[in-house]
Amino acid sequence: MSSFVEKNIYHHASGEAEQTVKAHSNKCDLVFYAAWFCPFVHRTWLALEEKEILYEYREVNPYKKEKEFLDINPLGLTPAIAYHGKALHESLVLNEFLEDEFTGSKPLLPKDSFERARCRLWIDHLAKKFTSAFFRTMQAQEEDKQKEGLNELVETLKTYLDQVKGPWFLGEQFSLVDITVAPWIFRMYILEEHRGFKDELVGGCWPEYKKLIKERPSVIKTSSDRQRYTEFYQRYLQNETESEIAKAIRAGKPLP
Amino acid sequence: MSSFVEKNIYHHASGEAEQTVKAHSNKCDLVFYAAWFCPFVHRTWLALEEKEILYEYREVNPYKKEKEFLDINPLGLTPAIAYHGKALHESLVLNEFLEDEFTGSKPLLPKDSFERARCRLWIDHLAKKFTSAFFRTMQAQEEDKQKEGLNELVETLKTYLDQVKGPWFLGEQFSLVDITVAPWIFRMYILEEHRGFKDELVGGCWPEYKKLIKERPSVIKTSSDRQRYTEFYQRYLQNETESEIAKAIRAGKPLP
Ligand SMILES: N[C@@H](CCC(=O)N[C@@H](CS)C(=O)NCC(=O)O)C(=O)O
Ligand SMILES: N[C@@H](CCC(=O)N[C@@H](CS)C(=O)NCC(=O)O)C(=O)O
Repeated sequence: MSSFVEKNIYHHASGEAEQTVKAHSNKCDLVFYAAWFCPFVHRTWLALEEKEILYEYREVNPYKKEKEFLDINPLGLTPAIAYHGKALHESLVLNEFLEDEFTGSKPLLPKDSFERARCRLWIDHLAKKFTSAFFRTMQAQEEDKQKEGLNELVETLKTYLDQVKGPWFLGEQFSLVDITVAPWIFRMYILEEHRGFKDELVGGCWPEYKKLIKERPSVIKTSSDRQRYTEFYQRYLQNETESEIAKAIRAGKPLP
Repeated sequence: MSSFVEKNIYHHASGEAEQTVKAHSNKCDLVFYAAWFCPFVHRTWLALEEKEILYEYREVNPYKKEKEFLDINPLGLTPAIAYHGKALHESLVLNEFLEDEFTGSKPLLPKDSFERARCRLWIDHLAKKFTSAFFRTMQAQEEDKQKEGLNELVETLKTYLDQVKGPWFLGEQFSLVDITVAPWIFRMYILEEHRGFKDELVGGCWPEYKKLIKERPSVIKTSSDRQRYTEFYQRYLQNETESEIAKAIRAGKPLP
């Protein structure tokens, strides 16, 4: 298997996201190392936009593992940031960092310790179970494996949605919990078109929650043209990508 | 395969831990639902002890899935806590909660946002990679799989230790990072005796770090008799346990 395609992905954001990237091309204390297609990047991008933090967007192709980027994140994964010259990575860690550091901007976690913990509990659920079920379903080739993945996805989604007060997880406050799942909700049409996902499988507040996520201005501002994602996910749907995530899913190892 | 043995585990803490349990038998605002043998419980227990928080220890056998406990954690996993009657679970979430809530006690995370984020990054590394390599190595039956697991364990440990300032991760301050790995360091002798783990495979500051962890008063106070752990881990070493973790490792799914 060659990793040719991963190294030749469409090389920059398109659509609304392209405008947002342009608006963040100036030098800044916070450099955001991002890949337009990456759902993990999307998480941190949403936090940056929601909190209206000043940042410089720098497009990286993480599959190329260029030295410049490895100096920022030795794992060679997007997203990463450099803040006043010091580097950090891991989407969820970055989001907590933004929350800790930019105390003047809109909070994305509640003040109350117990409520914060409840947020982290559900972030953990989504990150561990929902995300991995999504990738497993995408990569599955045999019909029974696809069904198995889909069932798991639907179950973990339902379990989560039972906790959503509405409109958002916390009620009126949009939070890091909504952000943790948003990039995959945005990409759900891939599973709709190729893996038989249907809204009716989930029910409850799902149609409304999905709609709200897709209409959220921060989500719209960070989204490229649908066609570009469709192209990108072909290699996942054929289980031919050599990304670290895909390899972990195949090997039954923890996601990177 | 029967889950007989899981349901008939030695039913309470022994040794030093037994004394500590006795000292925490009084009713309290914070109820700690624990299983003496559980390394995830151990993480939160260490945080409680280090921060000198008042807590009531309640022994639970998580394999029994008793209704009373499922009301506290629907997943039926230890550790869990009830604080002023409200329940929470997940060892790492609990540790962050204790840190957020008990601001008057000894801090286990640094004040600086960037340094906090760096802690969370390495907690994530340990929780995702080191812990799963530990269980994989224990459960592996074929020699090549055992070697593969062991190599991964050693690599993830080395990567972590490169970041340890010494004596602890942060330098002089003992933190949630040290706590995240401590329970497995304490249990490392299982892999020494049964999977060919040797200190020399790791090198660097490992012997010193291991020694310090094992001598830490909070670790000693929460440890049962070695013989009891040895008995408990037989079922893992024979890959016969039906614990959620063991099943996840076998199925190549994310750990619960
Ligand atoms: N756990 C990481 C995952 C990041 C990740 O896997 N990013 C992908 C792009 S979507 C990547 O950089 N892949 C490069 C590779 O697989 O070599 C996070 O949450 O930030
Ligand atoms: N991710 C959880 C894992 C907790 C866990 O798996 N605990 C084990 C005991 S060590 C358990 O409750 N097992 C019950 C079962 O497998 O049914 C945490 O960090 O708290």
